[in-house]
Amino acid sequence: MKTVLIFSGGLDSTVLLYQLLADGDRVLTLSVDYGQRHRVELEHARRITRSLGVPWQLADLSNVGSLLGGSSLTSPEIAVPHGHYAEPSMKQTVVANRNMIMLAVAAGWAISQRADRLAYAAHAGDHTIYPDCRPAFADAMARAIRLADWHEIGLCCPFIHLTKTQIVVRGAELGVDFGSTWSCYEGGSVHCGLCGTCFERREAFQQAGVPDPTRYKSTPT
Amino acid sequence: MKTVLIFSGGLDSTVLLYQLLADGDRVLTLSVDYGQRHRVELEHARRITRSLGVPWQLADLSNVGSLLGGSSLTSPEIAVPHGHYAEPSMKQTVVANRNMIMLAVAAGWAISQRADRLAYAAHAGDHTIYPDCRPAFADAMARAIRLADWHEIGLCCPFIHLTKTQIVVRGAELGVDFGSTWSCYEGGSVHCGLCGTCFERREAFQQAGVPDPTRYKSTPT
Repeated sequence: MKTVLIFSGGLDSTVLLYQLLADGDRVLTLSVDYGQRHRVELEHARRITRSLGVPWQLADLSNVGSLLGGSSLTSPEIAVPHGHYAEPSMKQTVVANRNMIMLAVAAGWAISQRADRLAYAAHAGDHTIYPDCRPAFADAMARAIRLADWHEIGLCCPFIHLTKTQIVVRGAELGVDFGSTWSCYEGGSVHCGLCGTCFERREAFQQAGVPDPTRYKSTPT
Repeated sequence: MKTVLIFSGGLDSTVLLYQLLADGDRVLTLSVDYGQRHRVELEHARRITRSLGVPWQLADLSNVGSLLGGSSLTSPEIAVPHGHYAEPSMKQTVVANRNMIMLAVAAGWAISQRADRLAYAAHAGDHTIYPDCRPAFADAMARAIRLADWHEIGLCCPFIHLTKTQIVVRGAELGVDFGSTWSCYEGGSVHCGLCGTCFERREAFQQAGVPDPTRYKSTPT
């Protein structure tokens, strides 16, 4: 099975990468530069794939981010909200239609590579904030991707009903090097510890009972 | 009705632009640079929208074209095939997943602009060559676009069951300035007259009984 994986260098897609490799897939990874503030994740993606000997490709969509405006992830003038990842303020981190754009570019690359399927690591914890992580969205995209070319590509999102905690458990079973992954929306050299995705990351390790190797700059009070 | 139109500066999307304006829509146009050889169409798009006083936005995806390789539209080393647009050789002009990528970026822009709907001018003549112009593909994308954000965007493709000839008839009724539109895949300063889209354009005017203002460099023998 030849699989293209949308790979951010974050915790979820790294666990999925390990799982696909454990399943014996021939994996090609694609990271997307959409002008994100935490572009540092791309360097983590490059390093992780290099250490695993997996091909890595960067899609440069950095010129497109400004069209999807109004997100703290792409607009330097909008601060990244602090607090729990399920709070309404986290909607400021939505980049309009980001997942469809990434899936579309990755599917195009998968078609040109004659891959069998495309994988991405949307998970259940994302649903309340990110509409484009919902199962119904993934189903519609799976259908569109299958119809987009004479060469049929399947869409695989095995974590869509898992919580982040369950993904950490799965990752621990697979021997994932969690310390090499990047989550924080702020970017920087260490995780801020205060943004929604840092909250979620810390909470997932705690709930999973798995040691958290992450260095956080701050701890919420 | 606030409508984002994917606008190439070609015949089909120009007729659709006139139709939307005639319907009273407030139209925003988006052209996509995907590294196409016939980038000259973007200049035509800019000029047409300026003459009509319609906002025009360019999405720069020129860095992505190389990932969708193997098309004569984006690879200088692959010649644009000459001949009838329904011939199997025309599959060389397929850019992998081009329409999904354009729809995804345009939907993202439409969401950020709080538009009501997204329009594109896929038509029946495209179906045999371009899988991503088929009605079933458009239906799947309509569903995915509706689910992609809390702000719902509709997808409008009113030409999907029309032939190019019918689009020319519609354009003539709407008073479209056909001479300002660009079709040819070769690029250049005048239409080549020999590529698939020049064939289709010439044939559509002939079958519609509408004067063809296009200057073609060559006539097929």
